[in-house]
Amino acid sequence: MRIIVAPDSFKGSLSALGVAEAMERGIRAVFPEADILKVPIADGGEGTVEALVAATHGRLMHATVRGPLGEPVRAHWGVSGDGTTAFLEMAAASGLPLVPKERRDPRITSTFGTGELMKAALDAGLRKLVIGIGGSATNDGGTGMARALGARFLDAGGRDLPEGGAALARLARIDLSGLDPRLAEASVLVACDVDNPLCGPRGASAVYGPQKGANPEMVAELDAALGAFATVAAAATGRDIALLPGAGAAGGLGAGLLYFTPASLRPGVSIVLETTHFETLIQGTDLVITGEGRTDFQTAMGKAPVGVAAVAKRHGVPVVCIAGGLGDGAEEVLAHGIDALASIVPQPMSLEACMGQGGSLVETAVAGVCRMLRVGRSLGR
Amino acid sequence: MRIIVAPDSFKGSLSALGVAEAMERGIRAVFPEADILKVPIADGGEGTVEALVAATHGRLMHATVRGPLGEPVRAHWGVSGDGTTAFLEMAAASGLPLVPKERRDPRITSTFGTGELMKAALDAGLRKLVIGIGGSATNDGGTGMARALGARFLDAGGRDLPEGGAALARLARIDLSGLDPRLAEASVLVACDVDNPLCGPRGASAVYGPQKGANPEMVAELDAALGAFATVAAAATGRDIALLPGAGAAGGLGAGLLYFTPASLRPGVSIVLETTHFETLIQGTDLVITGEGRTDFQTAMGKAPVGVAAVAKRHGVPVVCIAGGLGDGAEEVLAHGIDALASIVPQPMSLEACMGQGGSLVETAVAGVCRMLRVGRSLGR
Repeated sequence: MRIIVAPDSFKGSLSALGVAEAMERGIRAVFPEADILKVPIADGGEGTVEALVAATHGRLMHATVRGPLGEPVRAHWGVSGDGTTAFLEMAAASGLPLVPKERRDPRITSTFGTGELMKAALDAGLRKLVIGIGGSATNDGGTGMARALGARFLDAGGRDLPEGGAALARLARIDLSGLDPRLAEASVLVACDVDNPLCGPRGASAVYGPQKGANPEMVAELDAALGAFATVAAAATGRDIALLPGAGAAGGLGAGLLYFTPASLRPGVSIVLETTHFETLIQGTDLVITGEGRTDFQTAMGKAPVGVAAVAKRHGVPVVCIAGGLGDGAEEVLAHGIDALASIVPQPMSLEACMGQGGSLVETAVAGVCRMLRVGRSLGR
Repeated sequence: MRIIVAPDSFKGSLSALGVAEAMERGIRAVFPEADILKVPIADGGEGTVEALVAATHGRLMHATVRGPLGEPVRAHWGVSGDGTTAFLEMAAASGLPLVPKERRDPRITSTFGTGELMKAALDAGLRKLVIGIGGSATNDGGTGMARALGARFLDAGGRDLPEGGAALARLARIDLSGLDPRLAEASVLVACDVDNPLCGPRGASAVYGPQKGANPEMVAELDAALGAFATVAAAATGRDIALLPGAGAAGGLGAGLLYFTPASLRPGVSIVLETTHFETLIQGTDLVITGEGRTDFQTAMGKAPVGVAAVAKRHGVPVVCIAGGLGDGAEEVLAHGIDALASIVPQPMSLEACMGQGGSLVETAVAGVCRMLRVGRSLGR
């Protein structure tokens, strides 16, 4: 029996690779002879590089870059197993966990390090970049990223602005003459699962600013600054993308990538499925086990398990989804290619307790599911 | 597909019949054409009559009898579908919930009402009695029960003792001349899942007295009184049963039934399986779904799911167990005839929340299990 395990991460508990490994152990306990393929799925946030490296049998790379506040950060990135594609995640260089709570200030944090990671990938000869942009500490419209790649952001006096989103209020001109020419030959695929525009009440500052440390006054200040940035950037690049879904992702890094690189924004799961050649892998597979931290009505709206299921369905392969928790409307996924659902929760217990032992709960639950499948198989005879 | 649902009750949440009905709904949601047979399993406590009546398609009867403190209680009992067997539970006449907390006093509570129920069954012409004896408020060695059936318990002066266990300290003689002669022709099968002897540190008073309201002094008093009772009863009946496992069940009602009636004590599940002709029902069945409130290492020691599984295994029928919670060592049941386990808990939540919505959780979980079985069946093709 050939089984693909293709879970998303269980946020706060296990990476997608960690879930996939636990699933593999659970299957082995019941079907020791199974041919198991692990394809961890990512959504662009923390763990995207790990998942893509694991899924493509690639390798991890490291670079020391500037963190959100300019401090040196040792960040990882990855190269696909076939050597063609760089896997980057902005969280590794510019992520919120890199900034201590008391120092969080989205007015000054920068995506510079993310640009340095892109440069490292270009230096390594790679021209196909996959970038996950979830989990940012920043609100700089991706200007730090562009700066690391040679762009200059100038005030009315022709002086370089300091790093961070607040300074963009004084942006007068963008000088792209020094922008890394290798970007023009590159393809930049951005894994992005949010559809926020750059500015306004659904924009980067209003929706994500507060969790990065912005109070209401800062949100207003940052939103206005990104508005000024959009005006100047549109003029400088000829691209009017501020209202595109995803432009407001990662403090406007979505917009910055669209302005300054040949980027396209796509849901993380579709990028991962494409990058891992999932459509090819699934041929000859008997069963797909996917999963995520919480399955509910939102899952049916395009989250990882449903993306996986869509491909599996095209090939007639049954799909089982293992959830850290099954919430309201979870059964809606049954209309989206998932054939059966199971939770990992063995008994009444707290969320903290579940998260603390995610690996063993996933393993046990998957073993239980496999025993159930085995009973079902005996019924078919 | 023919499926038997044979769950125990989920204590504190759902009766065995309630669980079986929820399981049926869950199966119907996935296999609308299934042929479903409900065989709720009981362990002798509250719900035993309901389960046996449901399992045999029998009928409920009612009688007004004396409660634990002598007050009138409308108690139910049952007759099997084939009209041969009476189903009684002592909890209906002499159960702990019948006594308000502030009036609990195992020195004076009596099993008289249980004897009245037995008499009602004999009056109805029934000679096969199945009695569940869990959940008692009493500690009277079954003397109240025997009294209702004609026995007399006398002090040294030849006066009838008052009701209750404490008075047995003054027991000098038992007069069985008036004992209902129909008892001699009856078979009395007692559903008993505990193995306590009548007296001593593992006896009725020491182990179960405190939960019935006894403080340490009362426990000592009651234990001594039951000791006196055992001496006199053994002399009167020629039966030396005080050390038999189960003699100490239900405040010594186990002993009383052994002394004064042709009783045999057996685990509840085995009586239910026998009474429902489970061994016959299972023929031609494709699947058994059993369940209980909590499955753990103790389940493997002979609880309902394992009793059900033992019969199913003899006939090669797969068994799935649905648990309100899967505790430590739950997987030990896999070595005792159960093929797969699943919990009803869909997400991190409290025990209270689980208990409050037991019916819908069981239904949803069983539907999920059926979908998993359907996936498994497709793998078998």
